[in-house]
Amino acid sequence: MSSVTISPITNLPEIDPTSDLLTLLAGSEPQLREGDILVVTQKVVSKWENRLVRLDSVTPSRRARDMATKYDKHPGLVELVLQESQELLREEHGVLISRTHHGFVCANAGIDLSNVDGGETACLLPKDCDRSARNIGTALSERLGFHLPVIVSDSFGRPWRLGITNVALGAWGLAVLLDHRGSKDTHGLEMKATVIGVADSLAASTELVVGKTTGYGAALVRGYRYVKDCESTVNSSVRPWFQCFFT
Amino acid sequence: MSSVTISPITNLPEIDPTSDLLTLLAGSEPQLREGDILVVTQKVVSKWENRLVRLDSVTPSRRARDMATKYDKHPGLVELVLQESQELLREEHGVLISRTHHGFVCANAGIDLSNVDGGETACLLPKDCDRSARNIGTALSERLGFHLPVIVSDSFGRPWRLGITNVALGAWGLAVLLDHRGSKDTHGLEMKATVIGVADSLAASTELVVGKTTGYGAALVRGYRYVKDCESTVNSSVRPWFQCFFT
Repeated sequence: MSSVTISPITNLPEIDPTSDLLTLLAGSEPQLREGDILVVTQKVVSKWENRLVRLDSVTPSRRARDMATKYDKHPGLVELVLQESQELLREEHGVLISRTHHGFVCANAGIDLSNVDGGETACLLPKDCDRSARNIGTALSERLGFHLPVIVSDSFGRPWRLGITNVALGAWGLAVLLDHRGSKDTHGLEMKATVIGVADSLAASTELVVGKTTGYGAALVRGYRYVKDCESTVNSSVRPWFQCFFT
Repeated sequence: MSSVTISPITNLPEIDPTSDLLTLLAGSEPQLREGDILVVTQKVVSKWENRLVRLDSVTPSRRARDMATKYDKHPGLVELVLQESQELLREEHGVLISRTHHGFVCANAGIDLSNVDGGETACLLPKDCDRSARNIGTALSERLGFHLPVIVSDSFGRPWRLGITNVALGAWGLAVLLDHRGSKDTHGLEMKATVIGVADSLAASTELVVGKTTGYGAALVRGYRYVKDCESTVNSSVRPWFQCFFT
């Protein structure tokens, strides 16, 4: 019987582009061990990668200005949402639901003003979240001397259910999906549609320790027997745009 | 710094309607303690509640027979999916996506043939999953002498992302959602759209120990400081049918 433990990483200060994030994570409290999975919030990664834009530095288009007036939003923020999106899917209650250039469907293209500087600066998602996870994972694996999978997480809303939950935006070092199709259940019946969203389940579990209001920006998961895979990406588990339902 | 631990409950045998599930859970391994949250899979609850239907006992309608032929499915299974649904939303790759009478949007109305008896018998979702959680939670709380929140979980597919993750179908004893709107972030900015899906995050975390192929049907979460609430339900966190996107 194996338990899984999720712990917040408590030694991260406010991160900015000059922070030595890798040294901070290599010396994390609690200390990372072989077998752990590191989950870092997008906010930490985005700040470190300087994905910060002052709203008053943005020149909004006419469309952005019109939408900003309609929804009582900052025109610079609306402009950034449009720039970060490949497709605007819906405007609802002033929330813009779009598909980002990564392929994620989320509110406001994942752009957030909270936990930055009080509302003047927008924090964009990392440009390539799998690459961010790979950069952090490979560097930390080398420093620590063991393989350390890394997930970049963010909290997204879902259709049909209230409440946000954490999902994986990027991953490196482990199989993002576990495909049980073709294997047998406990009664010997072949399972036909069982692909487990491993990276998303890991990301979701860290919501329990990395709250919006706690300020913790990373967590480690210990005891989960992941499948090592250095080529698996979240990007490849995002459905093509035309597949808007699930199979 | 508080960690959260998720452990599979390892002493549950195959459950059927004659099982003494409450006694088994009250004497669980590991033993439940005050502060824990119990997550029971829908499969265990459904079997205990005798939500089992032999496929050859079902009389399929013409519509069910036609769909069964088209998708190479058992007509009895298709009939059950139609009966358990208030609305069929999509037929895709032979998977029927519907909205169940509970309001859940999922594949095959949540009906499953796996881990039952090898394919002859369908396992339906509990009729009222919040009531199931309440029944188990109140009974166990009385037996154990402390408050024990209970979540009934199942693994659902999601739009836009491959892979299933666990969600809460029913809950009792804790706040299913945590509404941070109006509170301040770490920089003093008021958070506008932060409602955390607590029950879903708890359910998702148990995917890490309650795998489809392990046969474990329940798990406990230890160390998460939930908000006690005996009126909060999953049902009230399911969006109205016309709200098909998120806010």
